[in-house]
Amino acid sequence: MKKAILIVQCPDQKGIVAEVSRFLYSYHGNILEVDQHVDVEMGMFFMRAAWELDTFSLGKEEILPRFEAEVGERFSMETKLHFSDPKPRMAIFVSKLSHCLFDILGRHHAGQLDVEIPMVVSNHSDLQGIVEAFGIPFFHIPLSAANKESAEARQLDLLAEHQVDFIVLARYMQILSGDFIRHFPNRIINIHHSFLPAFVGARPYHAAFERGVKIIGATAHYVTEELDAGPIIEQEVARVRHHNTIAELVQIGQDVEKVTLSKAIKYHVERKVLAFKNKTVIFY
Amino acid sequence: MKKAILIVQCPDQKGIVAEVSRFLYSYHGNILEVDQHVDVEMGMFFMRAAWELDTFSLGKEEILPRFEAEVGERFSMETKLHFSDPKPRMAIFVSKLSHCLFDILGRHHAGQLDVEIPMVVSNHSDLQGIVEAFGIPFFHIPLSAANKESAEARQLDLLAEHQVDFIVLARYMQILSGDFIRHFPNRIINIHHSFLPAFVGARPYHAAFERGVKIIGATAHYVTEELDAGPIIEQEVARVRHHNTIAELVQIGQDVEKVTLSKAIKYHVERKVLAFKNKTVIFY
Amino acid sequence: MKKAILIVQCPDQKGIVAEVSRFLYSYHGNILEVDQHVDVEMGMFFMRAAWELDTFSLGKEEILPRFEAEVGERFSMETKLHFSDPKPRMAIFVSKLSHCLFDILGRHHAGQLDVEIPMVVSNHSDLQGIVEAFGIPFFHIPLSAANKESAEARQLDLLAEHQVDFIVLARYMQILSGDFIRHFPNRIINIHHSFLPAFVGARPYHAAFERGVKIIGATAHYVTEELDAGPIIEQEVARVRHHNTIAELVQIGQDVEKVTLSKAIKYHVERKVLAFKNKTVIFY
Amino acid sequence: MKKAILIVQCPDQKGIVAEVSRFLYSYHGNILEVDQHVDVEMGMFFMRAAWELDTFSLGKEEILPRFEAEVGERFSMETKLHFSDPKPRMAIFVSKLSHCLFDILGRHHAGQLDVEIPMVVSNHSDLQGIVEAFGIPFFHIPLSAANKESAEARQLDLLAEHQVDFIVLARYMQILSGDFIRHFPNRIINIHHSFLPAFVGARPYHAAFERGVKIIGATAHYVTEELDAGPIIEQEVARVRHHNTIAELVQIGQDVEKVTLSKAIKYHVERKVLAFKNKTVIFY
Repeated sequence: MKKAILIVQCPDQKGIVAEVSRFLYSYHGNILEVDQHVDVEMGMFFMRAAWELDTFSLGKEEILPRFEAEVGERFSMETKLHFSDPKPRMAIFVSKLSHCLFDILGRHHAGQLDVEIPMVVSNHSDLQGIVEAFGIPFFHIPLSAANKESAEARQLDLLAEHQVDFIVLARYMQILSGDFIRHFPNRIINIHHSFLPAFVGARPYHAAFERGVKIIGATAHYVTEELDAGPIIEQEVARVRHHNTIAELVQIGQDVEKVTLSKAIKYHVERKVLAFKNKTVIFY
Repeated sequence: MKKAILIVQCPDQKGIVAEVSRFLYSYHGNILEVDQHVDVEMGMFFMRAAWELDTFSLGKEEILPRFEAEVGERFSMETKLHFSDPKPRMAIFVSKLSHCLFDILGRHHAGQLDVEIPMVVSNHSDLQGIVEAFGIPFFHIPLSAANKESAEARQLDLLAEHQVDFIVLARYMQILSGDFIRHFPNRIINIHHSFLPAFVGARPYHAAFERGVKIIGATAHYVTEELDAGPIIEQEVARVRHHNTIAELVQIGQDVEKVTLSKAIKYHVERKVLAFKNKTVIFY
Repeated sequence: MKKAILIVQCPDQKGIVAEVSRFLYSYHGNILEVDQHVDVEMGMFFMRAAWELDTFSLGKEEILPRFEAEVGERFSMETKLHFSDPKPRMAIFVSKLSHCLFDILGRHHAGQLDVEIPMVVSNHSDLQGIVEAFGIPFFHIPLSAANKESAEARQLDLLAEHQVDFIVLARYMQILSGDFIRHFPNRIINIHHSFLPAFVGARPYHAAFERGVKIIGATAHYVTEELDAGPIIEQEVARVRHHNTIAELVQIGQDVEKVTLSKAIKYHVERKVLAFKNKTVIFY
Repeated sequence: MKKAILIVQCPDQKGIVAEVSRFLYSYHGNILEVDQHVDVEMGMFFMRAAWELDTFSLGKEEILPRFEAEVGERFSMETKLHFSDPKPRMAIFVSKLSHCLFDILGRHHAGQLDVEIPMVVSNHSDLQGIVEAFGIPFFHIPLSAANKESAEARQLDLLAEHQVDFIVLARYMQILSGDFIRHFPNRIINIHHSFLPAFVGARPYHAAFERGVKIIGATAHYVTEELDAGPIIEQEVARVRHHNTIAELVQIGQDVEKVTLSKAIKYHVERKVLAFKNKTVIFY
């Protein structure tokens, strides 16, 4: 079933739900999901509605202008419209650690992720064989302090050429430039291997070991220019014990990273993540 | 802030959300929460809407008849209307085990449960002192095979006299008669000390120990005439290990029971539980 | 570092820990891990000790006879001796569902599983390409009611030929014969897609959906002739909600299956699982 | 059954387990629990052994000197000996928030905590009635900037008079002086309402809300002079969502605090916590 998904955010006012649902009903929209959230502190309203496209009486191109005219302008809404078809196009960036990449490829192979994966980019060539066995094109773009600018230019070209909608950093051990990030605002998902805001930066498992914590975690977030400080999409944790070595923390943590990242990707693909200021509303 | 809460269930049709929200908007309802769910298999629609009562232009008594006339009848809705004020009135039934009872009393004392507790009923007198220290009336109604009928009659009288809305069985080790249960349909919450449907009936911790499970659980459910088979409201689990004795399973399990039961009570009090056939929709 | 691992079980008596540790010390064993458990109900003692092999003054072949003579016979011990090198040899049986298989292959590729995987066996050929991309031999052995006996004979031949120590059923949708199972007592690990003993048998996610449970689970267990009734090695759970369809339960559950099975494999490989009667001691 | 519990830590060497278990065996000790841990990084050995006291052939007073002479001195061990009887004596310090206090009193009433509670100390009198209903003496010691020194002196007098072994800060909203802390090294357990090291200091739930985390937590730790930086004993977490207000974070968090603190108390009482430098070994 093909779906349309409307995302709305605006200052909170009376009558929004009534007007949005009246609009959809007036064009014979069969609503599948509606979620709304009022952030009382910020006085903001957030809404997500999904409905069947086939029986809707407006064409794909007509929906947004008609919605703006009938509803959106009146409430000063910021509106986005998505369709379940065609699927969003996701690029994966990876370095040498394979666990998150393989996890995503396995889910995609099993039909669990409604995305196209037109490309995997890596600064190493180690994982090329298996990526290609999954039928995904692999681009090896080596990186050094010297060539960072040209490498990012090459990446941006490839992303444009393959019409990529969003990027997943599946343990990509390079820091993206502010310029690169500005091409994909709230459309780059990173997995950080700690329970943020604890253990920002490099070697969080070592830091967790030093502090003697009893639980470790991982955080999937949108990338912003400030390191590890973007809006958090998902977090998960796992229990560790005094006898776990750093190597074991890494291994336990990798399982947490995989699950956390895959959930964040799923929420993003299903258009369930609404980022506002530095926080997210997740309508799962 | 005083709230009105409307609960609706009906066969799924187009336009329900639009009509319900239009109704609320037309009388100046400031919607605080809206949740809806479509059960595609059963073709049923479920909705919960909460709004500010003070600024609503209909009086408490007018709301339901007006809603039925304008919306409910057209969609063949089954409708319930609740108000946050006055608070629902909850009776607690308990035997000798204190952990669930004390947990509820502690939460109530801390202002975490928006209920009145007009009475605790027990077939033993052991817990009377502490219940009364919390300022709650305690009724000791001894039970035996011989006096069960008259004891239940006495309980029903007390419940009526104290205008009790719903009952919590906080490890009440007696089986209620079908007649008693029919006085409170989907308004008696029991905590069963296993992860249902595993280990129905008596001594579930012993059965879990025998089977060598690695996780134990608890289940809060509405009481129906079939033992441990009513609609499940909440479940929680905890990990156990080979070295845990049955006594330790009991102790670990009691923590799970407390948390599970208190969540179920909270959902029920906030009118977030919609039971249909033998399942529940929980709008938490 | 190469390790020796001694597993002991016997009727509980005084002095066992002292004698075992004295034995290891007398031959200069540097103990790395010691765990013991007394099952008071059954009057049984269980112990696992691991020590450095390189600095031990007994040769690999001498250890067990010397231990039996000096300690084991006196306490009527049932004793097993393992070495970390060479690695145990694990066969994977799979049908069409790829999630557990790919998860295991990914972990193996990342160096997280200290096993050799000499063969993957499947009754379908769908997964052959990716298995071989991981460098693992794949054997397609079609199965029908008619050829079951000869197919199992072929499987047993291959297992013998590749010197397989234990078998993992990674969602292998065929029931093994009692004869096959008796070749690998407590050496076949199955993943069942429910929280046993709830939902034994086929289609557990459908049964969980029907019952309206709030948590689903998976169980890794040793295969015995009674279906889904063998000793439980590991269990994990995940929360589900009223809006989750059966397809979503399957998807959420597959993540649980992967984690549960991989933990069970790890415990087995590290010789941390001691099965006795129908339960397990797990020294993790 | 009365138990003796021996706690040992020393530089790692060969033969420790053998010698300790030989010692216990030579005096007819029936070992109930043995746990050991080697911290490879620090080159330290940790061990805990529990055995039946009634059948042991050394008197309570003889054990430690004999052990030191036969085993301890040779390995440069730091040794502690505890007995399950008499029970350790625990004081509870509390301010106005009742949830942790009531949780502890409930567990104690249910026989789950093997401690004596000779006193509850509070800088407010609010909770006096219920504490006394549980049969526990309550001491109201008001606190201000002006009287802090004399108040602490009074507390120390009471603690000495009641022969208190360790103190639990059950949301006691006062900072103890370094002098006070030095009277009870690794014998004051605090519950901090965040997942340390995230959100050190005041108002952690507000900070968690601001950052938009998806999981909150609590940390039980020994109190040291540096705020919220002592050895961590236990941590627990709970999931939160975008719609949770700060008040709801507080409420969800209080459940986590209760469970975390009660586990830490239990480990401490059972002598399962070995603190070394700023970390803990927990033999649960």
